[in-house]
Amino acid sequence: MTEIGVVMLGYAFMGKAHSNAFRKIAYMTWPPPLDARLVGIAGRNEAAVGEAAERYGYDYATTDWRDLVADERIGLFDNVGPNALHAEPTIAAAEAGKHVICEKPLGRNADESHEIWRRVAATGVKHLCAFNYRFVPAVRLAREMIEAGELGEIRHFRGRYLQDWGDDPSLDTWRFHPDEAGSGALGDLGAHVVDLARFLAGEIATVTGFVKTFLPGRTVDDAVEAAVEFESGAVGTVEATRLALGRRNAFQWEINGSKGSLAFDMERLNELQVFRADGDRARGFKTVLVSEADHPFWQHWWPPGHIIGWGETFVHELHHMLRAIAGDVEVAPYGATFEDGYRAAEICDAIVRSGASGARVALSYRTL
Amino acid sequence: MTEIGVVMLGYAFMGKAHSNAFRKIAYMTWPPPLDARLVGIAGRNEAAVGEAAERYGYDYATTDWRDLVADERIGLFDNVGPNALHAEPTIAAAEAGKHVICEKPLGRNADESHEIWRRVAATGVKHLCAFNYRFVPAVRLAREMIEAGELGEIRHFRGRYLQDWGDDPSLDTWRFHPDEAGSGALGDLGAHVVDLARFLAGEIATVTGFVKTFLPGRTVDDAVEAAVEFESGAVGTVEATRLALGRRNAFQWEINGSKGSLAFDMERLNELQVFRADGDRARGFKTVLVSEADHPFWQHWWPPGHIIGWGETFVHELHHMLRAIAGDVEVAPYGATFEDGYRAAEICDAIVRSGASGARVALSYRTL
Amino acid sequence: MTEIGVVMLGYAFMGKAHSNAFRKIAYMTWPPPLDARLVGIAGRNEAAVGEAAERYGYDYATTDWRDLVADERIGLFDNVGPNALHAEPTIAAAEAGKHVICEKPLGRNADESHEIWRRVAATGVKHLCAFNYRFVPAVRLAREMIEAGELGEIRHFRGRYLQDWGDDPSLDTWRFHPDEAGSGALGDLGAHVVDLARFLAGEIATVTGFVKTFLPGRTVDDAVEAAVEFESGAVGTVEATRLALGRRNAFQWEINGSKGSLAFDMERLNELQVFRADGDRARGFKTVLVSEADHPFWQHWWPPGHIIGWGETFVHELHHMLRAIAGDVEVAPYGATFEDGYRAAEICDAIVRSGASGARVALSYRTL
Amino acid sequence: MTEIGVVMLGYAFMGKAHSNAFRKIAYMTWPPPLDARLVGIAGRNEAAVGEAAERYGYDYATTDWRDLVADERIGLFDNVGPNALHAEPTIAAAEAGKHVICEKPLGRNADESHEIWRRVAATGVKHLCAFNYRFVPAVRLAREMIEAGELGEIRHFRGRYLQDWGDDPSLDTWRFHPDEAGSGALGDLGAHVVDLARFLAGEIATVTGFVKTFLPGRTVDDAVEAAVEFESGAVGTVEATRLALGRRNAFQWEINGSKGSLAFDMERLNELQVFRADGDRARGFKTVLVSEADHPFWQHWWPPGHIIGWGETFVHELHHMLRAIAGDVEVAPYGATFEDGYRAAEICDAIVRSGASGARVALSYRTL
Repeated sequence: MTEIGVVMLGYAFMGKAHSNAFRKIAYMTWPPPLDARLVGIAGRNEAAVGEAAERYGYDYATTDWRDLVADERIGLFDNVGPNALHAEPTIAAAEAGKHVICEKPLGRNADESHEIWRRVAATGVKHLCAFNYRFVPAVRLAREMIEAGELGEIRHFRGRYLQDWGDDPSLDTWRFHPDEAGSGALGDLGAHVVDLARFLAGEIATVTGFVKTFLPGRTVDDAVEAAVEFESGAVGTVEATRLALGRRNAFQWEINGSKGSLAFDMERLNELQVFRADGDRARGFKTVLVSEADHPFWQHWWPPGHIIGWGETFVHELHHMLRAIAGDVEVAPYGATFEDGYRAAEICDAIVRSGASGARVALSYRTL
Repeated sequence: MTEIGVVMLGYAFMGKAHSNAFRKIAYMTWPPPLDARLVGIAGRNEAAVGEAAERYGYDYATTDWRDLVADERIGLFDNVGPNALHAEPTIAAAEAGKHVICEKPLGRNADESHEIWRRVAATGVKHLCAFNYRFVPAVRLAREMIEAGELGEIRHFRGRYLQDWGDDPSLDTWRFHPDEAGSGALGDLGAHVVDLARFLAGEIATVTGFVKTFLPGRTVDDAVEAAVEFESGAVGTVEATRLALGRRNAFQWEINGSKGSLAFDMERLNELQVFRADGDRARGFKTVLVSEADHPFWQHWWPPGHIIGWGETFVHELHHMLRAIAGDVEVAPYGATFEDGYRAAEICDAIVRSGASGARVALSYRTL
Repeated sequence: MTEIGVVMLGYAFMGKAHSNAFRKIAYMTWPPPLDARLVGIAGRNEAAVGEAAERYGYDYATTDWRDLVADERIGLFDNVGPNALHAEPTIAAAEAGKHVICEKPLGRNADESHEIWRRVAATGVKHLCAFNYRFVPAVRLAREMIEAGELGEIRHFRGRYLQDWGDDPSLDTWRFHPDEAGSGALGDLGAHVVDLARFLAGEIATVTGFVKTFLPGRTVDDAVEAAVEFESGAVGTVEATRLALGRRNAFQWEINGSKGSLAFDMERLNELQVFRADGDRARGFKTVLVSEADHPFWQHWWPPGHIIGWGETFVHELHHMLRAIAGDVEVAPYGATFEDGYRAAEICDAIVRSGASGARVALSYRTL
Repeated sequence: MTEIGVVMLGYAFMGKAHSNAFRKIAYMTWPPPLDARLVGIAGRNEAAVGEAAERYGYDYATTDWRDLVADERIGLFDNVGPNALHAEPTIAAAEAGKHVICEKPLGRNADESHEIWRRVAATGVKHLCAFNYRFVPAVRLAREMIEAGELGEIRHFRGRYLQDWGDDPSLDTWRFHPDEAGSGALGDLGAHVVDLARFLAGEIATVTGFVKTFLPGRTVDDAVEAAVEFESGAVGTVEATRLALGRRNAFQWEINGSKGSLAFDMERLNELQVFRADGDRARGFKTVLVSEADHPFWQHWWPPGHIIGWGETFVHELHHMLRAIAGDVEVAPYGATFEDGYRAAEICDAIVRSGASGARVALSYRTL
């Protein structure tokens, strides 16, 4: 099996998620597309990154990400660091010829995101923006059903990502610093909504809405609200908040088409609600447990009904990237490329601009 | 018991709902506040209105609503006719000294609604705009919890009213004629969302959004999408559509406050989802079956858990109006007055204007 | 329209439910099969029964049920009194030529139930044992689907009726006195489970189980547990308890067949869970909102999705009985006859005997 | 970190689940209690077991489990083979001084289970019967709540394990051969119900019920139905079937106590339904997402609401066994010992005997 050296920038929440995924790919997806060898890991805290290397099985740790870029043995650079550390290391890695994965949001705004995309695309390496929710089996099944025309013409997409951990004035992480995060709930959660809106319902044409900060002293947004139109003519909403008490990871969306509807909640990520206008006297939404042998990604797992967890979305995502590197598949359209990362940022920025100006914004996407 | 003569304009869907309610009030709410005697009913189709009179027990039927207004025996005029028939008969009845109920939307637009309110208010009669969903036990319980401060500061209101019966190009009722209905999903469903938004989360300050028509040839809107800000600083969304396949009467809303959250779906109208940030290790949304002896309106019904239906909301609503006429209670704030009817119309119009201009609209409410 | 005089024995919980139903049938089921005139009502408390007569519109009240039986004007005797008052008045009414309705359980045990059935059947009048849950739209839809073979061969029926109001040692109603009630949760709730088991899955062949009393000093059972076999070969469970905290009226059942499954919960009585083994890749239980124009009983009600309440089951039930009296339909198989009442009692008794002896009991049903 | 050599007998469904768990323990539970080194794996098919060794990272594969027992380097023997292969290898390993894990059911019947327990206990090694559902966070939370008295006196336990994969006459695995499996749904699924019944509600005193085979030609049971009494006086049901169409892994249970109730469904294993009789006006079952920092096992995983999968139950279980071997904790009471495995078998056998004799069976548990 061909080996590929992997390095990671970042070792905390996302570092754990990605490291776990690489380790599981080795035996849960059998045979794996490539033999991913965990070579190096970088982070600011020397003790912590050293422990992470030992824990997850990286050959070495470093406090300077440039060491990773310079390492001749590696083929894939996985950037799970804070948003402010997305641009420079990712571009440097790509320009050093490494394939790159970058956590979402790609950059802190549309300009930075476009710059990352432009510079990386110019190198010819494979690039994946880690919108992992595309790799939830129920989300992929939804996409496949829509592609097959099972929903007909899409009329509505309503997406909201609700969490509540932001309701603590004493919290202080990089996620609350505009220079490190770019934005608050918008880039953290709203970007996911925008990405699945595009993944499932197509390109967004206009947005009208705003961001909102509730907690005194907070300098990033706590919430975002927008009404949107799609190029197809579909309409709907994009919402995100970190202040919806009782909602822990409730990324909920619903799609209505001319032949049926779909609905989803990330807190029950193994389930897809499916309505078909098939004339059955017993009509209604089905609770589909997306865990059958013929369901997306399920060849890697268990018998039907033996559900998987949130962490597995990364197994699917990074497995897809390894397949792309191995030449088995393209990153797009099932994975998000850096262009997708840029487009999500463009839409997020447009919501901010709409809020500032009070005017609806027609999206205009830059090319390379 | 004091008798009050009641007349009704309209005999179809809403006529059935209101007539049933008056008949049930007589014995389900015991003793009833007034003895409502069903005197007359008016409608355009002579045979149909005659049958309705026989069916529901009205003393007489007429094809001319002016007969009802002129009837000396009556004290309450209940207008459940098409929207285009709201203004003139309601005003005439009030000016003849009758208390008036008018189905929502009050008028076909804000101007007409304001005119109805202004003219009726000047007469001094009691007036109720029949936003019946204020009289769902779970909705009233929500209001009481919010009034008692159980949710703390409200940050979000998300409301959407989803139906699917509009997805039939062959349908032709007055609801699809702009001159008769005023608007489509906006006035039919969106007005309900706006009313409960105000009832639960307070006055709306700004809206940004639009209406949308999908079906070729249709001349009223099929859907409405808006992001809104409340005077309190809360933010959220208002949505309505008649094209959400599989959703039959899904008026869903969620409120997030600084101490807890509530969520609701009209298709399960006996249930309120309640989250309290009370530090319980076993935290989560409760499914509260709103059917306890100490729950709103439940003194009229059955043992706990023996649920009620949609039709009962009218029993509560008209019972409230009879109590108001009897002097036991004011129509506001638990019932919607014509001022509430006007304000909902002002907000609906603002969404239309926002859609036309592309600009956020700051609400400005007229007084008398 | 032909008039029929109706009298009622009992005026409390069930008296309210039946009286409401007769009044609503007059206009909600249009045209009604018969014009049910509420003539007399009997009860032990003179003041209370007098108020009930005024409230529900009976011509007169009496404290002696024999007055009702002797009244020449009546055609239907509706017995909603305590269980100990089922046998004598019901038999007397039938022998006086009145059609009879008797609340469940028919008698306090199988012997008494059989006696009621035998004596009443001999008179030739129509008889209905008021197992109202047969008249829930979702239950009737389930029956129709099973009759049409949509579930294939039935393999399992699991039924449990869970309430929690019995968890109060201070309660003292006739329901806790063996001489008045016959049994506790068994006859009150378990009989409903047994009736729907028979209605949906066919005759029961054997039972093995027991009853259980938890509260000190209580002299009727609090709970019943049984494993059952059907004549068809299906197997399952019958359970009932008044001590399931948090369950207010949770009559839940599930049926599994060789082609599909159904599940139901009375706390959400407008919904039927339907699974079809139809090979759809998106397989799962549908939440069917049983409120469509082509669903059972729905011609009487509202547009789809506008749900009905528990009280409406009596509208359907008594409407069915009026139709049977009018000759439009037979009481059986959709309504429960006194034979059904007797058979339920035979099964309940068998569970008690199984508990006492420790042995499985093969059912043997008496004929007339 | 202390190393322990691990060998595994079996490599299919359970072999995958256990191997994955050992690999994840190394970094998801940090620091791990022991460094589990995967030394050898045994199976009947030489090619398949060889591939499994490569896939999961075992040093070697063998077709003779005696090789594993004889390997001096190992400290833990994990038996995930077919039921007929539980007794001899497990006993041999223990008698060779290895700690042992054995998949459930421990033996093919109570006699064999008792023999395994007796022989292994005599050696003094640690033994775990792999009832992995004790290690679902929601199940452990339920246990902790019960231990803390939060439910008061327990009155009911209702457990049913519903699957539908058995509805295929063409299936032929060892699970359908009485000599290899011992029983059908009873040992496969019913044993899980019995184990959690004991884990949550205490020892079972009597059972009355039966097993049932539906499919022609099948020689093991398809379903089991029983009514049970606990030593505490609680009563309830134990059910299992492989023929409940639409139920894929629906291990559902409910417990009612004098202070509250709990309910659970394995298809939504991250959720626990919790009812507290706390006098809150807004009463109802909470849907608790068991994923908080202070919830069982959650220190190993993700932020709240980021749910885990079925496979993680094995991580918790084997982590517990490694801790027991390391001396940090006892296997019991949170893990199932071989005594627990024996007791479950005794109860399963009693249900079979009850079915055969028609009599209720009072349990009598053997000691060592």
